[in-house]
Amino acid sequence: MKRILTSEVPSRIGETVRLAGWIHALRAFREVQFLVLRDRGGLIQMVIHPGSPVDASSLGKEHVVEVEGEVVAEPRAPGGAEVRIGRLKVLARAAEPPLEISRPVKMRKTRLEKILDHRPISLRAPEIRAIFEIQSELVHAFGEHLRSQGFTEIKSSKIVATGTEGGANLFEIEYFDRRAYLAQSPQFYKQIMVGSGLERVFEVGPVYRAEKHETSRHLNEYTSLDFEMGFIRDEQDVIAMQVGLIRRMMEAVREHCTPQIELLGARIPAVGDTIPQIAFRDALDLLAGDGYHPPFGDLDPEAERRLCAWSEKEHGSELLYVVGFPLAKRPVYTAFREDDPETSRSFDLLFRGLEITTGSQRIHEHDLLVARMRERGLDAGEYDYYLSAFRHGMPPHGGLAIGLERLTKQLLGLDNVKEATLFPRDRNRLEP
Amino acid sequence: MKRILTSEVPSRIGETVRLAGWIHALRAFREVQFLVLRDRGGLIQMVIHPGSPVDASSLGKEHVVEVEGEVVAEPRAPGGAEVRIGRLKVLARAAEPPLEISRPVKMRKTRLEKILDHRPISLRAPEIRAIFEIQSELVHAFGEHLRSQGFTEIKSSKIVATGTEGGANLFEIEYFDRRAYLAQSPQFYKQIMVGSGLERVFEVGPVYRAEKHETSRHLNEYTSLDFEMGFIRDEQDVIAMQVGLIRRMMEAVREHCTPQIELLGARIPAVGDTIPQIAFRDALDLLAGDGYHPPFGDLDPEAERRLCAWSEKEHGSELLYVVGFPLAKRPVYTAFREDDPETSRSFDLLFRGLEITTGSQRIHEHDLLVARMRERGLDAGEYDYYLSAFRHGMPPHGGLAIGLERLTKQLLGLDNVKEATLFPRDRNRLEP
Repeated sequence: MKRILTSEVPSRIGETVRLAGWIHALRAFREVQFLVLRDRGGLIQMVIHPGSPVDASSLGKEHVVEVEGEVVAEPRAPGGAEVRIGRLKVLARAAEPPLEISRPVKMRKTRLEKILDHRPISLRAPEIRAIFEIQSELVHAFGEHLRSQGFTEIKSSKIVATGTEGGANLFEIEYFDRRAYLAQSPQFYKQIMVGSGLERVFEVGPVYRAEKHETSRHLNEYTSLDFEMGFIRDEQDVIAMQVGLIRRMMEAVREHCTPQIELLGARIPAVGDTIPQIAFRDALDLLAGDGYHPPFGDLDPEAERRLCAWSEKEHGSELLYVVGFPLAKRPVYTAFREDDPETSRSFDLLFRGLEITTGSQRIHEHDLLVARMRERGLDAGEYDYYLSAFRHGMPPHGGLAIGLERLTKQLLGLDNVKEATLFPRDRNRLEP
Repeated sequence: MKRILTSEVPSRIGETVRLAGWIHALRAFREVQFLVLRDRGGLIQMVIHPGSPVDASSLGKEHVVEVEGEVVAEPRAPGGAEVRIGRLKVLARAAEPPLEISRPVKMRKTRLEKILDHRPISLRAPEIRAIFEIQSELVHAFGEHLRSQGFTEIKSSKIVATGTEGGANLFEIEYFDRRAYLAQSPQFYKQIMVGSGLERVFEVGPVYRAEKHETSRHLNEYTSLDFEMGFIRDEQDVIAMQVGLIRRMMEAVREHCTPQIELLGARIPAVGDTIPQIAFRDALDLLAGDGYHPPFGDLDPEAERRLCAWSEKEHGSELLYVVGFPLAKRPVYTAFREDDPETSRSFDLLFRGLEITTGSQRIHEHDLLVARMRERGLDAGEYDYYLSAFRHGMPPHGGLAIGLERLTKQLLGLDNVKEATLFPRDRNRLEP
């Protein structure tokens, strides 16, 4: 008999079926034992009747079992059906789990550090597993939409000789007899790939930041959803591409992750044809009018929260682009306005109070890029492989990066970006 | 006017169109100048007639240009159409390229080291770019097929505290005040994710091997296509999943990469419902009968070539599974036959003379796994996070890893795996 998933049970009333999974819960109720079986399809209630050959006393939570039984209609069971166990085989026994994974309220009250210490077990809680089922769909939709727009997927090296964002915050690697670093972003490579003639490329891969601070929005290793596109007019073409992309990603989650959304009580935002934009200077004015003056004249987390609150009130949008950041605050390769050279052609996308994307048009003229490097005190010779793409003809281009864990966190209303990371790395955490 | 791609030109005869791309070639022919434009869609021939306002003498190879002109039928032009240039704008000028990227014969004769030194430019050669367009499709089909089989995509950490294959060949990272390593494989994480209840997971990500030797089939960083699945009977379920997967990947390349296959003269193998298998011991006997005795009684590259030659002759298959490797030669987590404990439940997939996959059923019983670790002299305490998944109930499971660059190399008949890597890393190469 072929195994079916728990999610298929309600459509099999009257049939004898075979299931396999983990014992999620065991309950004695007068004469009857109830067993809740968990598999990748969800949960199903099972019954061991008195006189059944199955010895319930030998079973325990998280034991892995294979079960055969008859599906019967049972209005009181979730899904309207339960399985009367005829035969049960233990595939693997289990020690008592360190977390009460079948009790959502207890799991919610468990400290994040404990959840992460016991990651292999905490992931078994359906409401935690659901985070990563949704994340898988986000990655999928990202690639699918971009492929439909003529993008090619690339895989660039994560071991680099020099950083892309200046020398700070790099993890060092012993690379044979040399020193190398973990890449902070695929920035230079994706630009090179635009210049290679692929024109439109995307990459889903890990990026590394050796930042010591510990916040609810930083990780030392995270997954970056990057794209870069050539032959643009300006940064608005990049923004327009992202609006369609975010809309598609939200639709995909809504279509394919209904049970997970319900389990998490998540609200998936509706994204229209455009997302509102505010110029950086106007954003500062707005904040000042609100009595808030962010430190260093830049947007800090409080400013991001206030701007999103304004966007929701003013435009009914939980997403907001801030455009035209001061050039001085942006990476060396950022393009700027001809009519206002202090203003960059860069942008951030804020979502429910947090920056989830930074992007821009990039400089495509070789000599201008070299001049900008010199102004910043960078040695252009160190970046010769990067500059060679520009020396030999680079089209106007731009792109952006979405932090996958931040997007997931904001989408699902999580408190900490580590909750949206399978195996997070921070200053103190190298395991699991 | 909206930009169209060169590939759309033949269907636009009589229309005025706008194109953009790189000048692939420039040729003077009596009175007329021919310009070949290259974009992500391909190549198109363009004509600058005498009296045209365009100054051909100001143009050069690899200049990035935007062109408007009329499409005319021209039987002598590739694709049967050419564009009469009316207006041309230079978007970026280019220095003379270091490689003759418009001349395939010259490119083929160029040393690989030079091709890699000038990677941003060599990728512009259509027959080199095509390798990575096909690779992108392989990655796509890998994920699509597995999703259709109920798999979830995961992203695991590449920074680890301990290796998965013993302590050898690890790159060291300075991780704040600690020592960490680059992951050799997502092995432990994908097993944990089977145990998390996702049951079926896949990952596409970088893996690292600090191997000093330099061969045509090794890289220090490569892309591993991994999957792992729970509730299997034995390793044959994993093999059956891969047969369907490889078939789908080959079909996808055939469907979506026709121009690239033609350009490279590649042969895409037909994969049926099964792929032939040979037991390791029978393979050694076969080789001995052929007069070949591989060193250390293991399969070396020469043995792999001979076995594939046999498979093609005997079974008409360019793919061959070798099953039942000696347990001693396989990683500690490898399952073995109950009736023959020296024989593992592991396998390799050979393709056109090269191993492109290693996989197996894994041990799922906690105590057995710990005992095996002790036999190998491993400290089980170091792997506690991994063992915790087994302590708390792990189903029978197995999986495999496909080396993306090796698969690409064999599929396209390339000489070196570095040709199938955008930015390869070897002992001497950290750039580009």
